Amino acid sequence: MIDLTDTISPALSKLDDAGRATLFTEARTANTFAATPVSDAELTEIWNLAKWAPTSANTQPLRILYVHPGQARERLVKHMKDGNKAKTASAPAVAVLAVDTRFHDYIPTLLPFRPEMKDVFDADEEMRTGAGMFNATLQAGYFILSIRAHGLAAGPMAGFDATGIDAAFFPDGRWRSILVVNIGHPGPNPWFARLPRLDHEDTIRWA
Amino acid sequence: MIDLTDTISPALSKLDDAGRATLFTEARTANTFAATPVSDAELTEIWNLAKWAPTSANTQPLRILYVHPGQARERLVKHMKDGNKAKTASAPAVAVLAVDTRFHDYIPTLLPFRPEMKDVFDADEEMRTGAGMFNATLQAGYFILSIRAHGLAAGPMAGFDATGIDAAFFPDGRWRSILVVNIGHPGPNPWFARLPRLDHEDTIRWA
Repeated sequence: MIDLTDTISPALSKLDDAGRATLFTEARTANTFAATPVSDAELTEIWNLAKWAPTSANTQPLRILYVHPGQARERLVKHMKDGNKAKTASAPAVAVLAVDTRFHDYIPTLLPFRPEMKDVFDADEEMRTGAGMFNATLQAGYFILSIRAHGLAAGPMAGFDATGIDAAFFPDGRWRSILVVNIGHPGPNPWFARLPRLDHEDTIRWA
Repeated sequence: MIDLTDTISPALSKLDDAGRATLFTEARTANTFAATPVSDAELTEIWNLAKWAPTSANTQPLRILYVHPGQARERLVKHMKDGNKAKTASAPAVAVLAVDTRFHDYIPTLLPFRPEMKDVFDADEEMRTGAGMFNATLQAGYFILSIRAHGLAAGPMAGFDATGIDAAFFPDGRWRSILVVNIGHPGPNPWFARLPRLDHEDTIRWA
């Protein structure tokens, strides 16, 4: 008996125009947010969607610290660059995206057919650090699009004192911050005029 | 007269279940591909969608080299790790994703209200290299999801000799490879059983 599951090539669907608008073509980085709160359940769902997109050797090194409004948020705002303080203070939700520097401890669970990769990473700090940063950053890209997929606006910010945030929130040194992202429903006048994109002639080559 | 455009908060749409399946929940990394070709126009459109997602200071440092089947592909395959050679040889399209180490030359065009950022990046190699790699990697995440948005399967691979690829394809040293991605319609038996994802208890903290 022939097992047809081995010979069928799955047909894939395209993303429709509404989905393209939600994630890419109409989506914008928000600088102001409405007072409408974002629930912890919504924030968990943003992760639960983003987690399905791929990482090398299924390593999934990205971690998230959600910082609620109040005392914790005030501590975070201190470490943001001046131009980012007001929006980080007022966003309904803020995520500190971080890399778990011991992501490889999970490899026997995440890559069960190659558990020895844990030891390969353990023995090579340079390779481990590079792979952790690379894959966590890939996942940061997925995470930003997942925020948008949930009908929310993202405000990613690279302008912060990472050493200060890490000392304040990750004192054991295992997690290291890579990006801070404001999350919420857009407020009044939430974004600037769209900035230009490079032409494909400047970005694509053919061989 | 009140300008209402300054006070209206835009309502955002959510991604529907079909879109979630196409990009995240049902999408899978393909290891085999159907013979169906992928046109240069489709490959350009993958870039044209991915380019809208955000980067720090609108820097957009990601570059793409598409390597057609034939002599150029054979040169590329030599630099892939053994486990990746067969699929890279047989994929209808292959993209080498790279960072443009002189991405800041475009800043006066891309960030017209802060053209002096070009000189800031020019003066600080460590900051420039970190920002280029970080933002190109974010864009690599967007690019993988854009491949899926076009009804195609992606096969991203970190296992390759970057020094060898850069010497063969980017001899002037300006572009540096960060990821190689096979692209096509899935072939027979295209993927493994889905690997586990971390629980949100292991990845999310609250402050």
